[in-house]
Amino acid sequence: MNKEQARREQDNEISSFLEHKAYNLRKWSIIQTSQAGSGHVTSCLSAADIIAVLFFYSMQYDAGDFNNPDNDRFVLSKGHAAPVLYAAWKEVGVLTEQDLLGYRTIGSTLEGHPTYRFQYAQAATGSLGMGLSIGVGIALCAKLDKRSCFTYVLMGDSETAEGSVWEAVSLAVYYKLDKLVGIIDCNRLGQSTETMLGCQAQKYSDIYTSFGFKTYIVDGHSIPDLMAVFDASGAALGSEQPIMVIAKTHKGYGIESVEDKEGFHGQAFKKENREAVLAQLKERFLDAAMYTEDRVSSQLLGHTASTLPDTIPAMSQKLKEYTAAIIIPSSFPYVYAKEAMIATRKAYGEALALLGDVLTEVVCLDAEVKNSTYAELFEKKHPDRFFQCFVAEQNMIGMGIGFSRWGKIPFISTFGSFFTRAHDQIRMAVLSNAALRLVGSHVGVSIGQDGPSQMALEDIGMMRALPNSIVLYPSDAVSTHSLVAQMAQYSAGVSYMRTTRSETPILYGANEEFPVGGCKVVRKSSQDKVCIIAAGITVWQALKAYDSLAMQEAPVYVAVIDLYSIKPFDRATVIATAHSAGNKIITVEDHYIQGGIGEMIAAALCDTGITVVSLAVTELPHSGKPEELLAWAHIDAQAIVTEVLSLLRR
Amino acid sequence: MNKEQARREQDNEISSFLEHKAYNLRKWSIIQTSQAGSGHVTSCLSAADIIAVLFFYSMQYDAGDFNNPDNDRFVLSKGHAAPVLYAAWKEVGVLTEQDLLGYRTIGSTLEGHPTYRFQYAQAATGSLGMGLSIGVGIALCAKLDKRSCFTYVLMGDSETAEGSVWEAVSLAVYYKLDKLVGIIDCNRLGQSTETMLGCQAQKYSDIYTSFGFKTYIVDGHSIPDLMAVFDASGAALGSEQPIMVIAKTHKGYGIESVEDKEGFHGQAFKKENREAVLAQLKERFLDAAMYTEDRVSSQLLGHTASTLPDTIPAMSQKLKEYTAAIIIPSSFPYVYAKEAMIATRKAYGEALALLGDVLTEVVCLDAEVKNSTYAELFEKKHPDRFFQCFVAEQNMIGMGIGFSRWGKIPFISTFGSFFTRAHDQIRMAVLSNAALRLVGSHVGVSIGQDGPSQMALEDIGMMRALPNSIVLYPSDAVSTHSLVAQMAQYSAGVSYMRTTRSETPILYGANEEFPVGGCKVVRKSSQDKVCIIAAGITVWQALKAYDSLAMQEAPVYVAVIDLYSIKPFDRATVIATAHSAGNKIITVEDHYIQGGIGEMIAAALCDTGITVVSLAVTELPHSGKPEELLAWAHIDAQAIVTEVLSLLRR
Repeated sequence: MNKEQARREQDNEISSFLEHKAYNLRKWSIIQTSQAGSGHVTSCLSAADIIAVLFFYSMQYDAGDFNNPDNDRFVLSKGHAAPVLYAAWKEVGVLTEQDLLGYRTIGSTLEGHPTYRFQYAQAATGSLGMGLSIGVGIALCAKLDKRSCFTYVLMGDSETAEGSVWEAVSLAVYYKLDKLVGIIDCNRLGQSTETMLGCQAQKYSDIYTSFGFKTYIVDGHSIPDLMAVFDASGAALGSEQPIMVIAKTHKGYGIESVEDKEGFHGQAFKKENREAVLAQLKERFLDAAMYTEDRVSSQLLGHTASTLPDTIPAMSQKLKEYTAAIIIPSSFPYVYAKEAMIATRKAYGEALALLGDVLTEVVCLDAEVKNSTYAELFEKKHPDRFFQCFVAEQNMIGMGIGFSRWGKIPFISTFGSFFTRAHDQIRMAVLSNAALRLVGSHVGVSIGQDGPSQMALEDIGMMRALPNSIVLYPSDAVSTHSLVAQMAQYSAGVSYMRTTRSETPILYGANEEFPVGGCKVVRKSSQDKVCIIAAGITVWQALKAYDSLAMQEAPVYVAVIDLYSIKPFDRATVIATAHSAGNKIITVEDHYIQGGIGEMIAAALCDTGITVVSLAVTELPHSGKPEELLAWAHIDAQAIVTEVLSLLRR
Repeated sequence: MNKEQARREQDNEISSFLEHKAYNLRKWSIIQTSQAGSGHVTSCLSAADIIAVLFFYSMQYDAGDFNNPDNDRFVLSKGHAAPVLYAAWKEVGVLTEQDLLGYRTIGSTLEGHPTYRFQYAQAATGSLGMGLSIGVGIALCAKLDKRSCFTYVLMGDSETAEGSVWEAVSLAVYYKLDKLVGIIDCNRLGQSTETMLGCQAQKYSDIYTSFGFKTYIVDGHSIPDLMAVFDASGAALGSEQPIMVIAKTHKGYGIESVEDKEGFHGQAFKKENREAVLAQLKERFLDAAMYTEDRVSSQLLGHTASTLPDTIPAMSQKLKEYTAAIIIPSSFPYVYAKEAMIATRKAYGEALALLGDVLTEVVCLDAEVKNSTYAELFEKKHPDRFFQCFVAEQNMIGMGIGFSRWGKIPFISTFGSFFTRAHDQIRMAVLSNAALRLVGSHVGVSIGQDGPSQMALEDIGMMRALPNSIVLYPSDAVSTHSLVAQMAQYSAGVSYMRTTRSETPILYGANEEFPVGGCKVVRKSSQDKVCIIAAGITVWQALKAYDSLAMQEAPVYVAVIDLYSIKPFDRATVIATAHSAGNKIITVEDHYIQGGIGEMIAAALCDTGITVVSLAVTELPHSGKPEELLAWAHIDAQAIVTEVLSLLRR
């Protein structure tokens, strides 16, 4: 037997082993979904061969050391095919059959679509078209940290209709991510109809090639062809091109009654038919079914046969330890003179640049507005950790999920209004338990002339509604500085900071502390008749109103609270302050009334007997000067004065 | 002079005229922005030649009959270049110099980025990457109504990084929109850095070609070349390919100090330098500046020289008249037997299909989930008015803006959670005053096993925060039926309906009316101790709780309100019912607590002395059975009973 023959025989041997694994993936997918009575089994059947080759041939990883940075990564973008992902990890050995049978039940980590609760998923998926962005984030981290791992992203063909995919494609080319391998499970059938391109694999290939990808078309059910194509994509290293494999597959492959047929998306086989279906499967893939695994040399498969952990590694514990280690050194310097005038957006940029000095894990992502958000100050000091994402907010957030998963501390800034562009990705980031630090500039009507399209007026409501989120809105540079540092430390979810476009004075001294969940009572006396709750730009209006009321012929005194931490907010201090201020609160915010500070406070104080009146934006704004618009929206000092006097007359 | 010579001379004559127009557009752009002290003048200067050729040569339209369906349409996707759009309409004759000087001031319709207040803009733009989707919508309407008009969309090169552009590109090809002409103002420079592709016009061309566009590369500052390319794009008709013109331009073209230079995005020339800048412009384009318009034969330019209106046509008035004419005939049939079990999502599909019979303007847009939302019932009856948008929600909403502008009544349905994907487009739809009818299925934890990625839990908050929106959430098929008809009639903004995945009984009789802004008190007695406010799925839990409380040893009676209209809501009835029910309200909703019904009611009733307790989802949900999840979230009947008893013990 010459060398060539020996190699061929070895390949055949591996191929048989992988066919067996693919058979098992199909089997477990059928079992899980029929057990649950729901689930996307046909989408699993089309992907089984691809996943078998990736998990048990191409990918290099140590399942027992899952967080090893050199592990190859796999992102299942088509999250509805979760059962085949769970099946793969069962075959790897970290899940049991019993675990699989828990799929979609309330106590299980194996949810209908993967979430962070299944730690072996790189990210929560299930809203389509996000996986490639997450993969771009991971691949960029690997490049930044000079790790050799590959990142594989399996997409459905339907989901490539999502624009976020093309954002990721463009950026992968821009950053020359030649260790990013996308795979399209091109099974032709969407949920309810054929995809736009059907089975035109060449058309897919042409498009990806035109963007700058290296592309391969392959029979997605041929194990040897898949082995060859992933071998080739590894060999393509140095071309500086990311890779896209268009795998021609059949939805439902393996079970004739559903194979390549419309109408079976998300349809599980009935539990009572399970044995019959499994028998069909066995008949179809008899050799693979009868294969015994000890036939394959463990040497060939060393990367999957490595010592498996006794228990699933406590990754969440590891992450906890990791993030507990994020301690902002006392050398993080304070920079503001009392007499400075500085926009909080600029203070963010300055704080972040300094933070980057002391925390090497901090990275910054920008959507081509770095000169508006002042992210450019970070870029100037730390160009290697600054990532230009261009005007593509969805991919930027998806990348952030990847960065967070890798263990970086991503600060992501753009205009507050443009986070709405990535609302779905931010929502999914929460399901990934990703610690994104989002900073939105240009909030509210007070940005002025640029007009309503540029004004964030729904961001507080949007960010408050994210489970585990924190929402911050500093009024001056000093508090901004402190809160930026605390955002870095917050790893339990998404944190969001609103910053202000216009310059504002310094309100606080160098030694002030601004704990998340706290507030500052900036005006208070024993004669207070009303408590004003403001945040950000409206703190300055409230202070003006205070002066104006105090200087009246018959002075009226009001307490003023700077609610720099909106979620969580300091309920106790708010209530105590209101109790000593006539049990009356006026909230004033540069945000739509729905979902804002006013509704939050009113709801939270409902049982306290405190009256809450809300001043907020209630109509579609115009272009105009900032001060004109604050007056137009009735959230300026004059409006506060009027409301105080009106409230006292009631 | 032979024919060829004559043609060439005529072309030269037109060319001179257009150069003069381009000069004027530059001049007015400089004047507006320097007057306002802000604005994106360099982005206007790069686009002036393209717009001059479009407005005064290629486009066929009657400015005096602006709503004429045969008018060619122009969408300024790069909305920050608003001054050059306003300048064009000044040159057309419908704006005055005085109007232009109002740019960016609070009383003016000429806002920093175009909104619906400037009626000649086809749509509000300024959040980038949306124009092509709007154009796809308009072009599809033209095709549907067999109109001959072209739709031109001018994009910036930066904004082509937005994935929504690629969604629109794919769909334009799919629908063979050969009268859709996109133009990329390829000036190389973004806001803060060079674009991803810089001036690689061929690369742009390759990508658009690969998707299936017919593409042209042209010198965007050569009037004759632009004339030729738009002539060619008209001549390409019948190829069934949409067209993309990549126009190589220089940002700031015409003023040397800023031309093709970084750092001048969004920088207006100082007012005190205006005369000097205009002098430079004149020197650079002396012939164009000195040109007198009477030199050009009005016959050549018949389409722009048509009788202009004395006043700006009252388009909003026209629209008002149009929509007032939307009367649902009494023949719109009612279909539900009292004993039926039917999901409200299915009732939506059935109602829409029937509505389509009586209202030919109704169209339906789907994001490849028509079998889940039941939009397929409309498709079956009205395939010509059903538009498959595939898994690309952003473009779907953008198209809806185009449909609305054309005068159609677009119903747009997908999973409620996936409207977050198009939050920015929905936000911008409001600025376009577009009457989108949005219907979100699969809301709340009660969808069950598919898990949190598929559960809409922030949609009420998101949709409530849209100015002029209405938010509806029917609990049964009868109310769904009625509310679908009313959504068709609502043309003053975005309307949103939540539908339920699972089957529910019929609650109401055939003759019930469900006015928007109303509610139904479904249980009420003189002994009520608490008022339960529910909507959608929780109405059924509230009714179960009612039964359970009434059947206790010591019966407790509660009022139950079905709040099918969340925005606006029937404050008076809620207050009156609560007053006669112990001044206590418990809200219960399958939605996150933030921005939901509970916060809304608590804030609105803050001054009434009524206690409001909110039951809502407060944590990240799991996969599980619907009833398990309702219990887990403490929003099921048992949780309501517990809360009632606890409240009465306080």
